[in-house]
Amino acid sequence: MVKYPSGSLAAFRKPVQKKPTLKRSYHHKKGVNFSDRGMTLEQQINESNKYYLSEEIAVVHKKPTPIQIVKVDYPKRSKAVIREAYFRQASTTDYNGVYQGYYLDFEAKETKNKTNFPLKNFHEHQIYHLDECLKQQGICFTIIGFTSLDRYFVTPASFVIQAWKTKNKSSLTLKEIEDHSVEIKSGFHPTLPYIEAVDHFIKDRKRLNGK
Amino acid sequence: MVKYPSGSLAAFRKPVQKKPTLKRSYHHKKGVNFSDRGMTLEQQINESNKYYLSEEIAVVHKKPTPIQIVKVDYPKRSKAVIREAYFRQASTTDYNGVYQGYYLDFEAKETKNKTNFPLKNFHEHQIYHLDECLKQQGICFTIIGFTSLDRYFVTPASFVIQAWKTKNKSSLTLKEIEDHSVEIKSGFHPTLPYIEAVDHFIKDRKRLNGK
Repeated sequence: MVKYPSGSLAAFRKPVQKKPTLKRSYHHKKGVNFSDRGMTLEQQINESNKYYLSEEIAVVHKKPTPIQIVKVDYPKRSKAVIREAYFRQASTTDYNGVYQGYYLDFEAKETKNKTNFPLKNFHEHQIYHLDECLKQQGICFTIIGFTSLDRYFVTPASFVIQAWKTKNKSSLTLKEIEDHSVEIKSGFHPTLPYIEAVDHFIKDRKRLNGK
Repeated sequence: MVKYPSGSLAAFRKPVQKKPTLKRSYHHKKGVNFSDRGMTLEQQINESNKYYLSEEIAVVHKKPTPIQIVKVDYPKRSKAVIREAYFRQASTTDYNGVYQGYYLDFEAKETKNKTNFPLKNFHEHQIYHLDECLKQQGICFTIIGFTSLDRYFVTPASFVIQAWKTKNKSSLTLKEIEDHSVEIKSGFHPTLPYIEAVDHFIKDRKRLNGK
């Protein structure tokens, strides 16, 4: 039997390191829930936004991660390559857009926890930004995904901000979230129908404004 | 006199290499106009947005440039360094935000030209996005800066989209822009008071809606 070099050498070869698949994002890597066809919360929202855009229901986009670029190479006959860059602190939430004249602004977070949502998941700049947008009468909220339970809640930012600012309060219980949110069911088109919850918030606002 | 180790060793210490100043942006490097204290249009808008935010007048942010990250190093005891990344095509305009409940969306462009503004400065995705946001009743516009003339125009997106879609029309004349825009004067606080123009657009809309 002929021993081909490739065969005989195979045992000594260093295991091929598979090139990592290009990652679209570095967030929400944990907590993948296979009941949602393996999609992270972020992916579900992005899918939903694509659907809302194509159906002309709403225009909502995820903001790119802010990057501080230090060095860029411009190879001949090839596109520019960033060779040195750093992640910067964002100054807003991840998502904003427009729906029927309303400004939407929200942050999405997921947890594997089954009984409560740790408030430290929200960063100060996100809370500050939601607060500022509320002052401008935006429709501001959070989407909290309990991935182990496959449950998704759209919670008004005002409630989250209040809890976040409460001394010695480190988390929201599931009960608190249930009581103050609109629960949405993960589905097909859109994957996560959060605009349903927005409709509730708009109705509430109109009722409060007496029209 | 006692020579402290820290003192005696100082002479042998490696000279501290000053870190290069990080650049905030790679856009609009050309066309700097010294009549505006050397600020590009983008810088003027960013300054104005800072002012509007601090005075709680409006919340408008520039979106980060979208980047496709391929390789990241995580040096010990140091922050992550992006070692390979590429610029991606944006899918929206550069700016959006909220003002008194209204969704704002706009793109800013500058030209050294003195008589007309070439429409090729707008990219298809920007026109498409403005069109989609208009359908959702956003307040959509462009800020066109004639840097050589030190003149700035806030033009409703509807007019720009129509011109962009007109066959064989390659530019907007200064006269056309004058006739269809609100001109704003570069000032101090804010640097570029574009919200004044937004107030005009809101007034027009209310008049059209009969309220």
